[in-house]
Amino acid sequence: MIDLRSDTVTRPTDAMRRAMAEAEVGDDVFGEDPTVRALEEETAALLGKEAALYVTSGHMANQLGLYVSTRSGDEVWAHEHHHLIGDEQGATAVLARALPRLYSDGDVPSEALLERWISGRGDVHRAEPALVWLENTFTGRVVPLAEQRRVTDFAHRHGLRAHLDGARLWNAAAALEVSPAEVAEGFDSVSVCFSKGLGAPVGSALAGDAATVARARRARKLLGAGMRQAGIIAAGALYALREHRERMVEDHARAATLAERIDRVHGLSARARTNMVLVATPEGRATPYAEAFARHGVRALAIGEGTIRLVVHLEITDRDVEEAATAIAKAATEL
Amino acid sequence: MIDLRSDTVTRPTDAMRRAMAEAEVGDDVFGEDPTVRALEEETAALLGKEAALYVTSGHMANQLGLYVSTRSGDEVWAHEHHHLIGDEQGATAVLARALPRLYSDGDVPSEALLERWISGRGDVHRAEPALVWLENTFTGRVVPLAEQRRVTDFAHRHGLRAHLDGARLWNAAAALEVSPAEVAEGFDSVSVCFSKGLGAPVGSALAGDAATVARARRARKLLGAGMRQAGIIAAGALYALREHRERMVEDHARAATLAERIDRVHGLSARARTNMVLVATPEGRATPYAEAFARHGVRALAIGEGTIRLVVHLEITDRDVEEAATAIAKAATEL
Amino acid sequence: MIDLRSDTVTRPTDAMRRAMAEAEVGDDVFGEDPTVRALEEETAALLGKEAALYVTSGHMANQLGLYVSTRSGDEVWAHEHHHLIGDEQGATAVLARALPRLYSDGDVPSEALLERWISGRGDVHRAEPALVWLENTFTGRVVPLAEQRRVTDFAHRHGLRAHLDGARLWNAAAALEVSPAEVAEGFDSVSVCFSKGLGAPVGSALAGDAATVARARRARKLLGAGMRQAGIIAAGALYALREHRERMVEDHARAATLAERIDRVHGLSARARTNMVLVATPEGRATPYAEAFARHGVRALAIGEGTIRLVVHLEITDRDVEEAATAIAKAATEL
Amino acid sequence: MIDLRSDTVTRPTDAMRRAMAEAEVGDDVFGEDPTVRALEEETAALLGKEAALYVTSGHMANQLGLYVSTRSGDEVWAHEHHHLIGDEQGATAVLARALPRLYSDGDVPSEALLERWISGRGDVHRAEPALVWLENTFTGRVVPLAEQRRVTDFAHRHGLRAHLDGARLWNAAAALEVSPAEVAEGFDSVSVCFSKGLGAPVGSALAGDAATVARARRARKLLGAGMRQAGIIAAGALYALREHRERMVEDHARAATLAERIDRVHGLSARARTNMVLVATPEGRATPYAEAFARHGVRALAIGEGTIRLVVHLEITDRDVEEAATAIAKAATEL
Repeated sequence: MIDLRSDTVTRPTDAMRRAMAEAEVGDDVFGEDPTVRALEEETAALLGKEAALYVTSGHMANQLGLYVSTRSGDEVWAHEHHHLIGDEQGATAVLARALPRLYSDGDVPSEALLERWISGRGDVHRAEPALVWLENTFTGRVVPLAEQRRVTDFAHRHGLRAHLDGARLWNAAAALEVSPAEVAEGFDSVSVCFSKGLGAPVGSALAGDAATVARARRARKLLGAGMRQAGIIAAGALYALREHRERMVEDHARAATLAERIDRVHGLSARARTNMVLVATPEGRATPYAEAFARHGVRALAIGEGTIRLVVHLEITDRDVEEAATAIAKAATEL
Repeated sequence: MIDLRSDTVTRPTDAMRRAMAEAEVGDDVFGEDPTVRALEEETAALLGKEAALYVTSGHMANQLGLYVSTRSGDEVWAHEHHHLIGDEQGATAVLARALPRLYSDGDVPSEALLERWISGRGDVHRAEPALVWLENTFTGRVVPLAEQRRVTDFAHRHGLRAHLDGARLWNAAAALEVSPAEVAEGFDSVSVCFSKGLGAPVGSALAGDAATVARARRARKLLGAGMRQAGIIAAGALYALREHRERMVEDHARAATLAERIDRVHGLSARARTNMVLVATPEGRATPYAEAFARHGVRALAIGEGTIRLVVHLEITDRDVEEAATAIAKAATEL
Repeated sequence: MIDLRSDTVTRPTDAMRRAMAEAEVGDDVFGEDPTVRALEEETAALLGKEAALYVTSGHMANQLGLYVSTRSGDEVWAHEHHHLIGDEQGATAVLARALPRLYSDGDVPSEALLERWISGRGDVHRAEPALVWLENTFTGRVVPLAEQRRVTDFAHRHGLRAHLDGARLWNAAAALEVSPAEVAEGFDSVSVCFSKGLGAPVGSALAGDAATVARARRARKLLGAGMRQAGIIAAGALYALREHRERMVEDHARAATLAERIDRVHGLSARARTNMVLVATPEGRATPYAEAFARHGVRALAIGEGTIRLVVHLEITDRDVEEAATAIAKAATEL
Repeated sequence: MIDLRSDTVTRPTDAMRRAMAEAEVGDDVFGEDPTVRALEEETAALLGKEAALYVTSGHMANQLGLYVSTRSGDEVWAHEHHHLIGDEQGATAVLARALPRLYSDGDVPSEALLERWISGRGDVHRAEPALVWLENTFTGRVVPLAEQRRVTDFAHRHGLRAHLDGARLWNAAAALEVSPAEVAEGFDSVSVCFSKGLGAPVGSALAGDAATVARARRARKLLGAGMRQAGIIAAGALYALREHRERMVEDHARAATLAERIDRVHGLSARARTNMVLVATPEGRATPYAEAFARHGVRALAIGEGTIRLVVHLEITDRDVEEAATAIAKAATEL
């Protein structure tokens, strides 16, 4: 089986396991775990922020970002396809008690939309806008930094805060050939993941200025998500951060190759976006196609009526790409 | 000034004031106010429900309906223009902690949409669907009962509950020439207003089965919205319910006349929907037009870039309609 | 029946009904109700605060006071017998999401307790202290102003806020022969009631500085507790505020007489506290005694195992006191 | 330094590190991590429950137990010194939105208290009782199983649920010489920790019937506390569960020895409770004594004005006990 459902399925490498087995640890609730501290400091430095907080998932990093930047009843502006909206249960309403206001077009809100939404501010019938949410990469697409900057500038000009869901920020930086700090610039808080493309078994971080991260650290404890000797798993994340960032361009190259091969298959069209390949099937046929792929040894997720997503990650070799493309072509002949 | 901003601006009539001055009252927190009890019983009977609860506003009736039909983190399906979404601040997130899932097309969700949304149920990434929300009338439009029924049937078939925002349910019943109970049929909870078209100074109700209303009664107290000798204002609502329902068709007729007259004005087009008139202005010009109307003695609300809303209510006479139409025509020549 | 269960049972007087029937009203959601505005201004002035907000109950005034002075997860310091703790359902957890920290001794927290509690501040295991809560009168007892001042000074010295539950602040002022503003001094927010001793049918207020009240006004709308033509009932409250404050000392005198009379009854002892009489029955016998009182025409509430509370209010005359005392003496002989 | 602050400070042993390094893992969000599954199954079996859920901390296990057994605004009955009340920030109010009702005497609520508290049920002024909370061991004390049973029986007889904070349940079972299942019997949900006495680096579990655990699993995801390849750390917990339970009696024996030795020191008295030693210092002197201990190489926590807590754990040998006792005796001579 070649598992292309997500870049979250990777298992720790032997080197990573060794790093974990040998990790120096302490009680992180007392602030005494040196490996966690090193991971948080390196993450903050890479993202050009004052501080970072190690947490168990991107979902938690996002929700903490939301929690510390809003008060109950505030409004967060997001895209209806952001992970925050459709992939974090009802957490937005339960934890921060924020109300989403959503747009559907484009990867960032247009200037006209921003102007319209801010103009209703102070209306007693509406939630109070507090936070603008972006995601980069967004469904694999790299959001141009100038577009991000336009939105964060707007936010700050109006006293709103801005958060970046950077679960795959490392992919964006690699694709744009810029530093992670450049992608994170202008945001009050940024979430990143050490699993996914980096391949660590567990963990994400929230970065921002010192006050923001201090509040998030307190809120992490409120959730019961502080961990005692967390250095064990933080060691895996630290290894991934140091050793696996540079190789991300290889995933992108493999995704491009895979897309190219699938695009030639009769009935399918495919585009690569960073480490993802989005395959368009005949209308409403995503599920049977995904099932056929699986019968031929390729696991993938139908993410829409006519769209299948394949994600390249660090366990995928050139040979896997070759075999997956062949299998998919064969599967397609059955439908 | 002819005030057509909303049907919420009406002041109590002399007869209504007399009813309030003479109301028999008791301590409603101890369940001892006879006027409140009479109002709740008559409302429930009119709506064909077991029980009803008197509350201070339609917003509160809606939020209590949401609160008793969901658990924290549940999903409510609504139209992006429902009052629940854009006119009740962040209450949905703060009180019930429910997450809205929104559609933008049509007055009710299509069958295809309902099927798609229910199919994702149980997914750990998504909020759990619990409640389908409808509104009738909706921005003045009467939602056909067969359409409502299709949605409530779907809801109950899948174990969801259904709520009707009936702030202007009396208008829908009058326009369809059916009883209020027929409009309320199939819903687990229904909110109605005694202000707006009925013209009482204060108050709304939530109706449903006995258990639903008992839970809402308890939740009303949680909000601190129980009132002691509420019979005073309930008397106004009771008077309105008994005396002002039948006259609602007159508002609709006047709205039709007003729309017809405005539609002939150069640069404007107008349609009546129950007691509302929606006026389309040249693109992006709603605000200057509304200001011009005001200068000529007609108050109205710009509710979109190119739309002005005028609402006919019980203080508006045939003569007011005549004068308003003349004033608007004159105002339009200035722009 | 002489109803001494609570001062909330009073019905509006004829003069009050006339005031309500003739009230000038407007749409208070648009800020256009002159009677509500007058009530809010007079209340603020009496309490020596910048602004006040009219709401439906003391419970709501308290909960709004809590909501605007805390963030989710903050700690409020209160007495275990405060109305906030035992009489407002789970509202404290649901609306403000505040965690109470409670003391049981004294009417105000001792200096030692305050010092101990503040010393744990910043501990990640504990909720963050934000608000100190007092109540005056407290179960009928007048809390000395010097004691209040010691607590509010402590609060402000440590950056905490202070709220006064002044549901019966008018009684405290009357008993101390000071102005209401003197009782309210030093608090960031104060709730007062127009029902209870003042005898209006409905309504309470939250007073404080302009920013605090503006936030509470917004939060009132979030609850759906804004009322349209609220002037009708506000007129009753305004009448009560103007005409019934001075007569409160009469209630206190009658309570003193009643206590004196009951204290002579075999098996009972009684003390007056402002307008309340607390009767100690033989151990664990409060309920049968209260039932016997009722059989003899006096309604009262058992508020503990061995305690009955009687409350004098504006419908109670000297003659009622006489008759109640006689009835209670007779009832006591049966037990 | 001999660190006796808490049993949370232990670092993983070499064998445990090996178990983690070699752990078989999968994506636990897809339910595919075999080590996590094994840990959950063994924990459930040991506790005599249908299912268990692996989480990051005892705090989280508790809060999930609370979340799934209450609705917003419900009441939880607990002791004022339970971990739930004083050590989990404001989480009780923020997550479950439950209101605590607290007792201060005894390790379990008395029958009289339970009867009094249940008698007010249904009162609209009070939060609705939903859950009774116990903790075993409680500040090191073993709560007798008959006492627990009396409380859980009461709860179930009245339709309430019962939760056991079993962070140190393993110590209770060892001290009572019964199986963990016997300590957990009668509870709808039970939290246990793999760190603390068992010595794993990270992790706790919530156990209960299948429906309860399924709801908690969903709620864990809501918090963002689902972990991908959690098997790495679960392997440490599994090792601890298999290998370190039996040796717990050694900690108790060492605590007894240590207490005996300290009790002989002039100015101090000491008692052992399972793995804890509570040392009474002269009034108000706990902090200077703890500081003196530290200067002589023993870290301990002052947990009250006149109380210091020392906790024996798996890194503490007989020789450490000897040295600690000697150091404390010497430290005491300085004060």
